[in-house]
Amino acid sequence: MDLKSYLAERTDRVDVALDYWLPAETLLPLRLHQAMRYSVFAGGKRLRPILSIAAAEAIGGSIEQVLPAACSLEMIHTYSLIHDDLPAMDNDNFRRGQPTSHRQFDEATAILAGDALLTEAFRLLADAEANRGVAPEKILQVIAIIARGAGSLGMVGGQAVDMESEGSEVDFPTLEYIHTHKTGALILASVQAGGCLAGADRDQMKALTGYGESAGLAFQIADDILNIVGDQAQTGKASGSDQARGKATYPALLGLAEARQRAEELCVRAVAALDPLGEAARPLKALARHMVNRNS
Amino acid sequence: MDLKSYLAERTDRVDVALDYWLPAETLLPLRLHQAMRYSVFAGGKRLRPILSIAAAEAIGGSIEQVLPAACSLEMIHTYSLIHDDLPAMDNDNFRRGQPTSHRQFDEATAILAGDALLTEAFRLLADAEANRGVAPEKILQVIAIIARGAGSLGMVGGQAVDMESEGSEVDFPTLEYIHTHKTGALILASVQAGGCLAGADRDQMKALTGYGESAGLAFQIADDILNIVGDQAQTGKASGSDQARGKATYPALLGLAEARQRAEELCVRAVAALDPLGEAARPLKALARHMVNRNS
Repeated sequence: MDLKSYLAERTDRVDVALDYWLPAETLLPLRLHQAMRYSVFAGGKRLRPILSIAAAEAIGGSIEQVLPAACSLEMIHTYSLIHDDLPAMDNDNFRRGQPTSHRQFDEATAILAGDALLTEAFRLLADAEANRGVAPEKILQVIAIIARGAGSLGMVGGQAVDMESEGSEVDFPTLEYIHTHKTGALILASVQAGGCLAGADRDQMKALTGYGESAGLAFQIADDILNIVGDQAQTGKASGSDQARGKATYPALLGLAEARQRAEELCVRAVAALDPLGEAARPLKALARHMVNRNS
Repeated sequence: MDLKSYLAERTDRVDVALDYWLPAETLLPLRLHQAMRYSVFAGGKRLRPILSIAAAEAIGGSIEQVLPAACSLEMIHTYSLIHDDLPAMDNDNFRRGQPTSHRQFDEATAILAGDALLTEAFRLLADAEANRGVAPEKILQVIAIIARGAGSLGMVGGQAVDMESEGSEVDFPTLEYIHTHKTGALILASVQAGGCLAGADRDQMKALTGYGESAGLAFQIADDILNIVGDQAQTGKASGSDQARGKATYPALLGLAEARQRAEELCVRAVAALDPLGEAARPLKALARHMVNRNS
């Protein structure tokens, strides 16, 4: 399959929908809405939305069914980046080559833009018009899936342990906790949300969950590796910044070769988990390989 | 009616429910969950939960129907206080006589505890077990009401304009925008959420909305007045701190006497709006008077 055009078509659908659903820059408070849109349209790859769409398609669902959830996942991902970049957290001045929110605006605006994006994500999930034709019970299930993946037992929990561990020796279980929570939990939630909205049965959800768990961790290991060997012009991040900051990473703990092997193994496992879903899961499989072998 | 015992009984129900639904301090990450609970159990008056309960009761609904929404409103209120207190925002070291979250823990933990409480609020709203017996369409409506009241067109929007306006001349329309959004929007949402869950019809929702709009603004004006004339030992805030910071307030713009009169007028209007609901709305009416005439 042609993954490039698959991604391009879906990225486009997601971008159009995000632009449609996000509050306009002409609405008060202008600066807050500008800041929300600045970060959402800062060149993200829309991985989480596309994963939720591909998961729905793997079950025979449509893009339309899953588009509000897809956009809400991107809003949540974006808010997490804005807050992670803050001076009290990773203190990053640039992301994808552009000033981070608190540098482009100010710290208060960045905090509030993140808060507003997180809130808007749930507003959109509950929006009756956006979700016309989808059963309310299913939407509630998806809200619970996404909130759990994003909250203190998921993404925020992973970030909290990451912050606590900075600069200290981290053992392997702690590193795995950070990675499976900070990045893995929202990726898993994206896949599960897509499956749930498309009406996945128990076995199908099990396949998607196995995929999401392995692919999410593989993605973060690939991210760690890219931070060392990646081309700064492509990744938009200073090479070696994790190491300079004393961040816990797979390459730091296992070495580069073993980290690569681990990512590869997880990718194989993610792909194998989808076998019960047949041909319809081909894009999802290609996405897992792409997540591990990307260069930005 | 005996408002004191009415409040005490409902505060107790809300506290027990919050304790039950919030992640335990023994769950990883410990520090994050400690920080979430530290701020939720820092002596809040549970005004928003009780407003949602009283609104449900005014329509003939029960506490049980509205308890998850009531707790989620308190989580959202608490997260907003944690973020408002941050150095980049109001830079407050104490709240209700205790160290603020970033002083008790650290800034990163305070940001993340706020993020996690906001997320947990929506997880709880969508929790199937907590909401057993409530129609999913109603829950989705309530999520939309609360998210709108808490987001960029509500509470967060009001805080954004408040931050932008600090230290500069603020005209009356801007001040009213700040107050109706920063405080009023979530109070209105609390009342509407309670009504919605209890099955309010169109006219009943109109009465509750009229009440919520007036009571919310009256509450904030009373807050402004307390900041000037209140006893620091009772309010837990330094007297005159708004003025020192150049905050836009009603007394600063209108003078104390006119601000008091405005609060009183709004209180009368709030109470009158409930007349169509009859006897069942008595606690809600008493709450409006209490919100304006409190001393802490």
